[in-house]
Amino acid sequence: MTLLLDHTTAKLPLEIAAQLAKEFSITAVDRDRQAGIPLEEVRRLRETGLLSLVIPKHYGGQGATWPEALQVLQTLAKADGSLGQLFANHLILPAAVQAAGTPSQAAYYCTLTAQHHLFWGNAVNTRDARLKITPAGNTFRVNGIKSFGTGVAAADMRLFAAMAPGTEMPVFFVLPSDRAGVTYNDDWDNMGQRRTASGSFTFENVIVYEDEILGPPTDPEGAFAGFINVVVQLTKAYVYLGIATGALEAAREYTTVATRPWMTAGVDRATQDPYILQHYGEFWMQLQAAQALADRTAHAVQTAWNKGDRLSHEERGEVAIAIATTKAFVARVGLDITNRMFEVMGARATASRYGCDRYWRDLRTFTLHDPIDYKLREIGNWLLNQEYPMPTQYS
Amino acid sequence: MTLLLDHTTAKLPLEIAAQLAKEFSITAVDRDRQAGIPLEEVRRLRETGLLSLVIPKHYGGQGATWPEALQVLQTLAKADGSLGQLFANHLILPAAVQAAGTPSQAAYYCTLTAQHHLFWGNAVNTRDARLKITPAGNTFRVNGIKSFGTGVAAADMRLFAAMAPGTEMPVFFVLPSDRAGVTYNDDWDNMGQRRTASGSFTFENVIVYEDEILGPPTDPEGAFAGFINVVVQLTKAYVYLGIATGALEAAREYTTVATRPWMTAGVDRATQDPYILQHYGEFWMQLQAAQALADRTAHAVQTAWNKGDRLSHEERGEVAIAIATTKAFVARVGLDITNRMFEVMGARATASRYGCDRYWRDLRTFTLHDPIDYKLREIGNWLLNQEYPMPTQYS
Amino acid sequence: MTLLLDHTTAKLPLEIAAQLAKEFSITAVDRDRQAGIPLEEVRRLRETGLLSLVIPKHYGGQGATWPEALQVLQTLAKADGSLGQLFANHLILPAAVQAAGTPSQAAYYCTLTAQHHLFWGNAVNTRDARLKITPAGNTFRVNGIKSFGTGVAAADMRLFAAMAPGTEMPVFFVLPSDRAGVTYNDDWDNMGQRRTASGSFTFENVIVYEDEILGPPTDPEGAFAGFINVVVQLTKAYVYLGIATGALEAAREYTTVATRPWMTAGVDRATQDPYILQHYGEFWMQLQAAQALADRTAHAVQTAWNKGDRLSHEERGEVAIAIATTKAFVARVGLDITNRMFEVMGARATASRYGCDRYWRDLRTFTLHDPIDYKLREIGNWLLNQEYPMPTQYS
Amino acid sequence: MTLLLDHTTAKLPLEIAAQLAKEFSITAVDRDRQAGIPLEEVRRLRETGLLSLVIPKHYGGQGATWPEALQVLQTLAKADGSLGQLFANHLILPAAVQAAGTPSQAAYYCTLTAQHHLFWGNAVNTRDARLKITPAGNTFRVNGIKSFGTGVAAADMRLFAAMAPGTEMPVFFVLPSDRAGVTYNDDWDNMGQRRTASGSFTFENVIVYEDEILGPPTDPEGAFAGFINVVVQLTKAYVYLGIATGALEAAREYTTVATRPWMTAGVDRATQDPYILQHYGEFWMQLQAAQALADRTAHAVQTAWNKGDRLSHEERGEVAIAIATTKAFVARVGLDITNRMFEVMGARATASRYGCDRYWRDLRTFTLHDPIDYKLREIGNWLLNQEYPMPTQYS
Repeated sequence: MTLLLDHTTAKLPLEIAAQLAKEFSITAVDRDRQAGIPLEEVRRLRETGLLSLVIPKHYGGQGATWPEALQVLQTLAKADGSLGQLFANHLILPAAVQAAGTPSQAAYYCTLTAQHHLFWGNAVNTRDARLKITPAGNTFRVNGIKSFGTGVAAADMRLFAAMAPGTEMPVFFVLPSDRAGVTYNDDWDNMGQRRTASGSFTFENVIVYEDEILGPPTDPEGAFAGFINVVVQLTKAYVYLGIATGALEAAREYTTVATRPWMTAGVDRATQDPYILQHYGEFWMQLQAAQALADRTAHAVQTAWNKGDRLSHEERGEVAIAIATTKAFVARVGLDITNRMFEVMGARATASRYGCDRYWRDLRTFTLHDPIDYKLREIGNWLLNQEYPMPTQYS
Repeated sequence: MTLLLDHTTAKLPLEIAAQLAKEFSITAVDRDRQAGIPLEEVRRLRETGLLSLVIPKHYGGQGATWPEALQVLQTLAKADGSLGQLFANHLILPAAVQAAGTPSQAAYYCTLTAQHHLFWGNAVNTRDARLKITPAGNTFRVNGIKSFGTGVAAADMRLFAAMAPGTEMPVFFVLPSDRAGVTYNDDWDNMGQRRTASGSFTFENVIVYEDEILGPPTDPEGAFAGFINVVVQLTKAYVYLGIATGALEAAREYTTVATRPWMTAGVDRATQDPYILQHYGEFWMQLQAAQALADRTAHAVQTAWNKGDRLSHEERGEVAIAIATTKAFVARVGLDITNRMFEVMGARATASRYGCDRYWRDLRTFTLHDPIDYKLREIGNWLLNQEYPMPTQYS
Repeated sequence: MTLLLDHTTAKLPLEIAAQLAKEFSITAVDRDRQAGIPLEEVRRLRETGLLSLVIPKHYGGQGATWPEALQVLQTLAKADGSLGQLFANHLILPAAVQAAGTPSQAAYYCTLTAQHHLFWGNAVNTRDARLKITPAGNTFRVNGIKSFGTGVAAADMRLFAAMAPGTEMPVFFVLPSDRAGVTYNDDWDNMGQRRTASGSFTFENVIVYEDEILGPPTDPEGAFAGFINVVVQLTKAYVYLGIATGALEAAREYTTVATRPWMTAGVDRATQDPYILQHYGEFWMQLQAAQALADRTAHAVQTAWNKGDRLSHEERGEVAIAIATTKAFVARVGLDITNRMFEVMGARATASRYGCDRYWRDLRTFTLHDPIDYKLREIGNWLLNQEYPMPTQYS
Repeated sequence: MTLLLDHTTAKLPLEIAAQLAKEFSITAVDRDRQAGIPLEEVRRLRETGLLSLVIPKHYGGQGATWPEALQVLQTLAKADGSLGQLFANHLILPAAVQAAGTPSQAAYYCTLTAQHHLFWGNAVNTRDARLKITPAGNTFRVNGIKSFGTGVAAADMRLFAAMAPGTEMPVFFVLPSDRAGVTYNDDWDNMGQRRTASGSFTFENVIVYEDEILGPPTDPEGAFAGFINVVVQLTKAYVYLGIATGALEAAREYTTVATRPWMTAGVDRATQDPYILQHYGEFWMQLQAAQALADRTAHAVQTAWNKGDRLSHEERGEVAIAIATTKAFVARVGLDITNRMFEVMGARATASRYGCDRYWRDLRTFTLHDPIDYKLREIGNWLLNQEYPMPTQYS
């Protein structure tokens, strides 16, 4: 198949995403079963040109806004939660380099990404402090293990975080895919998001050059420097939303085509059953609330993003609360739909060939990234005590 | 107090509403207890100029859009659910006259309303068929009883519906407040929305002139003719939203000022209690989802409204589903908040002087206007069977 | 009306309670509106002989088991939540005197209660430390204020708690109704449990005799000494259960008799509506789970009670967890039913003459006695850390 | 391993079940992955002697009561949902033969089962009418397909249902495992209950002898004849309860041992986290309500069972409602726990080696046997209209 994103055909990113989603939805059940490394997914994303979606135009990218990019993301996640998570991380990582890197690093990596349609993965996971970086002459050496390296095994550019001796803050650095000494342990065998290759990496005396270490950014103390950590959370929410949307569509298709009316329902078709209609009403209702909330938040993100270094800590805090609100709500809605969708399909829909449990398994897995409970706590704390959450990797 | 809405001071309707809301929130607990006829509320609404809010500018009104008007409505409802319901009906009734009346009736009533700041009430309630209209020479005579006449006892202009012999569709007519033979039975003593005077009316041989009977509209079969019935439902949703918003603010104020930390919580202030923070997080989360959904729907209403007679049945149907979705969702969210708000305030917040139960009583009462169950069913039926709900007084 | 409980007629306590409940259900709406002091309720309880229900037979009482007494309690609470709370406290107080008093105090107060059908009330509320007791020669003097004195204004015997200078543990004492200097401030005007007279008391130099101060019990360090504090919580749960049961019965009666089928339901009677049937199914389901759990716990209480001083701290802890579990569950179930019952009755059921909101108002108020959140925390803490809750007035 | 149930060692069935459960819990994750035919499970059940648990003593069985048998069932299901379902069906099938067969069939099959520790499976599934039985001389021939043949592939005795020409009621017959022409299609590859071998069977001209066709029973019109269909539903509820109990235990084990406290929780161990404690409190609370309800219902079943042919239709109906109530409640509780248990374990608990998703997959699959919605409807219909559900395979 030829490159989809093509200035001559002038297809919109959303159309391309829809086409790609359709393509991947056909193989989603199989790929979920196989798990493994998402090389095929990355290859197709690269071919479509979607990998430069949010790279600014002055670096050769498409310069999509966050609302546009998040809509693309939701479309992909609707077909396949793993694909969604991979693309979500990819959207964030060049932006993270812009935020955390020096201006020249930003320029270098963004331009490179746009030019060569590079795919990004990361193993930052600051809760795992086993990866150590130490100076070695003009360079550095990295040793140890890092878990949750989503997509790294299929990535062209990889962002890692390691601890330096005597420091508390992790050091971030970018490595190309051919750097010697980095081994993927291929140990991601989990109940959901199986096709994200989120396993661990072992580093054996890996060399890191000075200019591969990110930073310092223009204004390290400014609100914008940490803003990308906030936006990360919204990309996750859109993956959840995609999974939930995909689940509802799959259920609707199944109910319409395959569900038989219950014996005592007194109706000819399952689509006339009063309780089935009610459940669908509830699913749709919740999903629309989630979508409206997410879209409103996406616009708030863009407004804040446009301010760049003029973004105040208070403005960032307001957006962080909006995102926390969105993420917690979408997670709950999605869990309800992916859990209850079976009640509108019936027992035969549990056949593995339909793979309908993947929606729940994917969402259940990915919503554990950080606890909903603490998102709610942050919101409550802001509402009662006017305190904003600290932007970390998890907030 | 002088007229608030004044072209010289150029206060925005929303500011005026906020000021009026503040004023009425002080007396809300007392007025809830007294129930009775909301003459004071109507007087103040009249003085502020808000009664012409959605009357088109060419009739002398302020020509506010639906999103603007609904925001004003929510602001008033936040202070007082009854005030919200009265104003919601008032917003709709001149619009209903425009939709159901002849062009000259529309012009007449709208101009009159704008000019004299008239307040509208109605006793349409088509589920109660006890009111009968019969021809009597050039005029008509109306006899019987009609229940649920919200605000009519305090209204300048009153819209009624009665059944004509041998017909199934009700006849709508407008009567001024001094028409002889119309008696308010002052029998609205209900657990909530107590200050709406939603009691019954007895008609004894009441004369109705031909031009007081509404219609026919320009295009009786067109989608726009029934559209106002759809919009009605959204005004109710904004009253619910106002009540819920008011409840959350009241709770927050109370928790911050008066709630004591629980003995075993191990915190100094209630605002540090992990469960109280969690509940507030959930309240806020749900309310934001409700607000985002409602606001999105309000814009869809305006887009459809702007089409006027070019509105298609399908477009109307899409908006009707959006409104049903919004109303059901907001109702559930509001019921949860007004029920659980006590758990973040504590036992002493049940003192009658705080009147905190009025939020639940008002919302619980008003959300029974038509069953949430059937809203959900309509949504499910549309999702599975592509059928739009019939626009009636209740859908 | 003659005394109902009469050894010659041999009516069972439960039959008497049912008859009394029927009698009080007729006036429940009126008494809720009036609030005031429950003299009538106490008078009728006294006449029926139910006041000696749990007094041991060797003190002249009826020696009912806890399961029997709690069933009687639920029956009364079904008719009237305030009556339930008054009777719940009365059941506990002589038992508390047995547990906290010396053997001779136990004998004295129990015998007196059985003989004269005395009604007990209390203002213990250890969270309010404003009441002070100081030695004054051979006696003591009490001054200050104590809030939440449920039923005290109508009680023959009153249990109070006050703080002594330099101590952290409250002093408990019993006063007859004619003790000088104790003034009821008649300030209980709350949204629910309005007929419990739970207002505050002012003490002005009130004399307390040494033998009116309870204790020490036989084994102050033993598990049984604090066990009554645990049982208190279960009596509250049975009041909740009574209110919920009463709500469901009221709803069923209304739906069967008065609810009209919804316009688009396509059924002849509301009792055929699929959603109304579903809601009732859910109400019943939850209520049966609550009842089964409560009854199982009541039997566990009796088993522990029978052990008396042989009760171990671990056994007491197990029962405390069972009671916490029951109370939290029943509270949630009851709140759901009393909130949603309106959806199966319809808008006209909000008329004040039905008084259906009293179920929610009563339950909402009484379930705030101590936070459900901390009950759940105690259960979780026991499950994960094998720690039992401390028996206080609130656990 | 030697036979566990042995009159010389006098181990109780519940002890044996606990031991067997422990044994199977070790391999549960592996067997779930493999799916396939549960030959190993049947072999071990046979060796333990549990297969004759509810066979009456006069037929050589152990004559356990229903409460005893259901406790054994829950214990097995706690380790493995598939094992639970297999054993649940096995408990019912000899009882079904007693209820639907002639007295001599009852005696024959029960004695045989007890003597040889036979395992029963069935493919009754009356919603699938593709299996046809036709007379052929003195015998019958069966052709066609039957789906959902749980455990049949591993069974010694198999109960089937087929349609006879011109009839509406299915014909039930029992076949030994070596009957020619019956082929298991090995097509059970579903998301849950994977180890039940619930695939379809093809019958090619299978001979059925007259005495293999069940019936008529002593009193075909009597309430007892259909009672077993009612009891079936309770066995399913106990499997749900077992799965939920197993899930909670697995979660508790994981949280205690492996969950790390959240970064901002401010606690040293996850078992001190206020939200984790709260979730466990809720899980336990719901599970205890479910257990209490189920156990109460099990006793009601036994009381009705003891009546035998004296059981009235009304008594059967009351028990049917109690069972419907239990099943719906347990299903909801179990779905909540198996869905939310991940929130108290954290992201790393999604590793496939823990297999924690099997609780949700098993329960989600098995709770689709018949819709919860229609159970709730039946309860509501009984409560409002005093109508009992018809006892069919699904009610």
